[in-house]
Amino acid sequence: MTTKNASVAVVGASGYIGEELARLLLAHPHVDLAAVTSRQFAGKTLAEVFPRFSHDEKAKALKFTDSDATQLARMAEIIFLALPHGLAAEFARPLLQSGAQVVDLSADFRIKDAAVYKEFYGNHHPAPELLGEAVYGLPEIYREKIRDAKLVACPGCYPTSILIPLRPLIRRKAIDRKRILVTSLSGVTGAGRKVEADYLFAECNESMRPYGVPKHRHLAEIEQELSLLAGEKIAIQFTPHLAPVNRGILTTIYTELGGDVVVVDPALVFQNAYGQEPFVRLLGDKRLPDTKDVVGTNFIDIAWKIDTRTRRLIVMSAIDNIVKGASGQAIQCFNLMRGYRETSGLI
Amino acid sequence: MTTKNASVAVVGASGYIGEELARLLLAHPHVDLAAVTSRQFAGKTLAEVFPRFSHDEKAKALKFTDSDATQLARMAEIIFLALPHGLAAEFARPLLQSGAQVVDLSADFRIKDAAVYKEFYGNHHPAPELLGEAVYGLPEIYREKIRDAKLVACPGCYPTSILIPLRPLIRRKAIDRKRILVTSLSGVTGAGRKVEADYLFAECNESMRPYGVPKHRHLAEIEQELSLLAGEKIAIQFTPHLAPVNRGILTTIYTELGGDVVVVDPALVFQNAYGQEPFVRLLGDKRLPDTKDVVGTNFIDIAWKIDTRTRRLIVMSAIDNIVKGASGQAIQCFNLMRGYRETSGLI
Amino acid sequence: MTTKNASVAVVGASGYIGEELARLLLAHPHVDLAAVTSRQFAGKTLAEVFPRFSHDEKAKALKFTDSDATQLARMAEIIFLALPHGLAAEFARPLLQSGAQVVDLSADFRIKDAAVYKEFYGNHHPAPELLGEAVYGLPEIYREKIRDAKLVACPGCYPTSILIPLRPLIRRKAIDRKRILVTSLSGVTGAGRKVEADYLFAECNESMRPYGVPKHRHLAEIEQELSLLAGEKIAIQFTPHLAPVNRGILTTIYTELGGDVVVVDPALVFQNAYGQEPFVRLLGDKRLPDTKDVVGTNFIDIAWKIDTRTRRLIVMSAIDNIVKGASGQAIQCFNLMRGYRETSGLI
Amino acid sequence: MTTKNASVAVVGASGYIGEELARLLLAHPHVDLAAVTSRQFAGKTLAEVFPRFSHDEKAKALKFTDSDATQLARMAEIIFLALPHGLAAEFARPLLQSGAQVVDLSADFRIKDAAVYKEFYGNHHPAPELLGEAVYGLPEIYREKIRDAKLVACPGCYPTSILIPLRPLIRRKAIDRKRILVTSLSGVTGAGRKVEADYLFAECNESMRPYGVPKHRHLAEIEQELSLLAGEKIAIQFTPHLAPVNRGILTTIYTELGGDVVVVDPALVFQNAYGQEPFVRLLGDKRLPDTKDVVGTNFIDIAWKIDTRTRRLIVMSAIDNIVKGASGQAIQCFNLMRGYRETSGLI
Repeated sequence: MTTKNASVAVVGASGYIGEELARLLLAHPHVDLAAVTSRQFAGKTLAEVFPRFSHDEKAKALKFTDSDATQLARMAEIIFLALPHGLAAEFARPLLQSGAQVVDLSADFRIKDAAVYKEFYGNHHPAPELLGEAVYGLPEIYREKIRDAKLVACPGCYPTSILIPLRPLIRRKAIDRKRILVTSLSGVTGAGRKVEADYLFAECNESMRPYGVPKHRHLAEIEQELSLLAGEKIAIQFTPHLAPVNRGILTTIYTELGGDVVVVDPALVFQNAYGQEPFVRLLGDKRLPDTKDVVGTNFIDIAWKIDTRTRRLIVMSAIDNIVKGASGQAIQCFNLMRGYRETSGLI
Repeated sequence: MTTKNASVAVVGASGYIGEELARLLLAHPHVDLAAVTSRQFAGKTLAEVFPRFSHDEKAKALKFTDSDATQLARMAEIIFLALPHGLAAEFARPLLQSGAQVVDLSADFRIKDAAVYKEFYGNHHPAPELLGEAVYGLPEIYREKIRDAKLVACPGCYPTSILIPLRPLIRRKAIDRKRILVTSLSGVTGAGRKVEADYLFAECNESMRPYGVPKHRHLAEIEQELSLLAGEKIAIQFTPHLAPVNRGILTTIYTELGGDVVVVDPALVFQNAYGQEPFVRLLGDKRLPDTKDVVGTNFIDIAWKIDTRTRRLIVMSAIDNIVKGASGQAIQCFNLMRGYRETSGLI
Repeated sequence: MTTKNASVAVVGASGYIGEELARLLLAHPHVDLAAVTSRQFAGKTLAEVFPRFSHDEKAKALKFTDSDATQLARMAEIIFLALPHGLAAEFARPLLQSGAQVVDLSADFRIKDAAVYKEFYGNHHPAPELLGEAVYGLPEIYREKIRDAKLVACPGCYPTSILIPLRPLIRRKAIDRKRILVTSLSGVTGAGRKVEADYLFAECNESMRPYGVPKHRHLAEIEQELSLLAGEKIAIQFTPHLAPVNRGILTTIYTELGGDVVVVDPALVFQNAYGQEPFVRLLGDKRLPDTKDVVGTNFIDIAWKIDTRTRRLIVMSAIDNIVKGASGQAIQCFNLMRGYRETSGLI
Repeated sequence: MTTKNASVAVVGASGYIGEELARLLLAHPHVDLAAVTSRQFAGKTLAEVFPRFSHDEKAKALKFTDSDATQLARMAEIIFLALPHGLAAEFARPLLQSGAQVVDLSADFRIKDAAVYKEFYGNHHPAPELLGEAVYGLPEIYREKIRDAKLVACPGCYPTSILIPLRPLIRRKAIDRKRILVTSLSGVTGAGRKVEADYLFAECNESMRPYGVPKHRHLAEIEQELSLLAGEKIAIQFTPHLAPVNRGILTTIYTELGGDVVVVDPALVFQNAYGQEPFVRLLGDKRLPDTKDVVGTNFIDIAWKIDTRTRRLIVMSAIDNIVKGASGQAIQCFNLMRGYRETSGLI
């Protein structure tokens, strides 16, 4: 286990994900935060832009700069990209060429197939030659690959809350892979710090609403990863909803046990798969998850219930969309890439 | 259309449903509110207990009394019961015997089969002889029966949000009746004014959680009514969730189009079924429902999307759990029973 | 009491105040809503822009238009202006010249002194010649003048919550006029439907903060009106705060009883002043106000406590910032101007 | 600086303050959490009762017990009391006699005068002989005394938010001591995990309300401490309000500069007083505090504005009521008592 410090930079640090990255990196025992970039805030210190850091000496000294890939590669060994999709890929190329490692939190390197990227994101992929190199940053599935990765594509928040619970069930053929339905509830930071009327306080408060029905962008990576796990093409139903909380994703997954699925005890399946995982907490079939228990943490809480009336297994998970669903998971990957204890700076 | 006033009473008027009934009845053009009962508040006026009514002359004069069936039957022609299940049935019997009409908002008369009641509610039905007489108070299905009813059993909030959207699809055989899954999100008043730690502000705020998995009590009436519509036994999957809003239910229904279902245009089906309904608003497949658009009203908003990838029809609805999901619907039934305009006091 | 219908228009109907005006006017028994304007939504119907009106025949038919004063004056007898300050005055002039009556909800005609307007609002007053004509639209003070007004300047939300409680105390010299301090809490709609980062859900939720310290713009009209009541120049301290609710203002006023103030019973003073007011509810000194009791209504709830330790009289009030603080009060003025019952369309 | 671990216990660990104490102590580098007590949860582990600790090995092993002073004194060197007032004093006596140190978070030892305690809390003080021994646990005032204390009385949340800002102004005679008014806004956890109707979600959500007017219990300790600072009897005006957030206190203090007060630059006064304080963040007169910047931390943010119109200095502060207002401050005191770095386990 290494403990040599890493110099890191965060590109696009002015959104919720970037802010949380900054919070975690400022407190990380093995990190020298060398640069944060933001066009909007260039010239201001981290502490000026985010008052919650105003006691931190580093945050009082470190100024936002404009993003310059060449310069960043000189200052930092590992660069976190918290940029909109499309832009991230353009940034990643020169950084990688300069020998830096990249942890990308956008969607740009999650989809292995540039055509699928185009289908879901609307534009041609800006750096398709890098897709093969990228490792999907879900440690609970790709831990070993992440250790050696130069380019990590951190999963979306919904996919994290869905793939971790489904992985062992798919692998063990414990459910009907053709009949998976997922309902998710998300807090409003899931939309980012987007200044749009839809996300004003009075538009979200006292409101519950579905959106992105029936084809939310995250479906692309969810189905890609489920298909890889299953060894066959899998399509699922996925419906996200917005609820008036700042943070959190609550996911309810409906799976079917009928037909020729292998009869297993879900408790055993989950225990075998995740009993040793530092960030997976198995609630069992007696308790149900609640986002307030995971907010601010990198944990995913998983619970399940078998409905004997309908022969379905219902699996529920809760994460903090900004931590395990984004910035925390990025740090977890970073820890693996650098050989630190996986929980460094996270527990 | 009659306009002769009705004298009415509300039994158990201290909860959220009772308070909303009082609000609607105080403003109803054809109602004389003759009595409100509450053991806890006996002797206090409506205005003292509910400051939002403190400008209303009637509310300043009308005092809560203890509930006495004989006396109530003498004072009121129609009595609304906003009591816990079990208790409502005991009250209904003497009231009906005295010739009063009863609109019950508890679960006591919703389930036609006393054994199913016992299965879901745990106790023996206190008045099984009345079950045959009760009419399920969903005007969009049972309008004509409600007109002649002596005893109306108002549906639960979840069932209302589920049955209205599903009814025409079931009737038209437009979906696979064996494969219906429902996810609902509810505001916290759905739990009633229950003084329990689970419903304290800080336990609900910034929290999203499923509950009642996999066998919520409302399943009993949902499946009963769907089975009646289908002419065969139907079981569904239903998962409620709690979100931090005061009011509202957002329901997302997953239905399957595959197999031998009749191919129809959902827009036509819904338009035919509900084009003339005063409280059903069809959003179509372009807009999605939002609970904030229905809060405080007796409307149900319905939208739908066909997912061609999965051959599913996803139907979404939004209601105010206390109005269309309880007190407003009770008034709607009352209007029918009395021969008033169905929207009296509601629009 | 007249009941002849009035044809009215709302200019700038796309904000929270305009939306609430539309809601109240659609339901008003004596109103023909002839036009609504909004540059952003021109061509769309009211029902399309505001889904909560989607059941209303009028709202389904009435389309937003661009604002054209000449045309509006031809269509409507009374025009409500829900425009930003500066813009409202420019609009009012041609409308008044065309013979229409104007109810302005901006700050443009509240300040009688153009120099004070310039001091607080930063720009030269665009129509100073109209200032003398405008009547400050607080019926509890200027009822008779409002009846005959051509141009009504509706008060701001904070001033409404402050002036109504203070008026009788100032008039009766029951408090030290030189030592008035006011703390107010406002819901987020108070900022309007402004698409700025500060009002995003996650910036307001779980946040409490002061703003506009020490010289909020509403001070100009508050001090103007208090000075008029007192017959001498009065300056007060006023600190607004933002709290995460959609609607409501809670105002706490600290006044001093010491010195040569007249010793009176506040209960008598308030009862004499407001015992007959249709929208003032006096809670007395036993109960305290709560914004949830007034939200959605045109009431102001007023309570008070004498602190014998400090010889202060603390007066507290609660209103809905969008109703009594804006659109409801505008309708109340409109009712007076037209000779309708003052509570028409409001209770 | 010592680093020898301390064995500690928390008595009454089932409320919000106890839960936060447990959270901070579980993560504290120098703490062995030896016992947690709760009558309600005796026999259950910390992890079972508080799911957010369910990953923590210690929390999974440590079971709640009934409170037994003799046994606690044997197990722990320092005992935190998170009990209701009245009960805490009874517990403290035997613990102190057994040689343990006590950090009390109730009100029992904050008031030096048993008669004042009786006036504000209604009952006779249960252990008046200990009042002389207790040190008021506000490190920013009593740091040196706390280091040697056997019994620390942690301040209430409101007093913390008021006394820290006022201390240097009083000391420097920079304000009129006779004319101090304070308005505070509190989140709902300030009421504790009290299962009362007033704190149900739907009673607090979308609600803003004053309470405890004009004589809230915290006045007793606020005035006691201000009087000690001033060397003369000081009475203030204090009005708390409840707003729908989980955590946080926002305090606005109105002070007067007129008369014979010493003319000083508040920036200098605050900088001199608190420039080196680890948990005081001075925002100056350009920015205003926001509770969301301090929630989850032990910081107090302080800002100020001079109003030249009224010759008042307005000072505003923000804290987390459960951390700096209770459990965090208790740990800060504990660190001082044990000779640890004052920020241990807190930053």
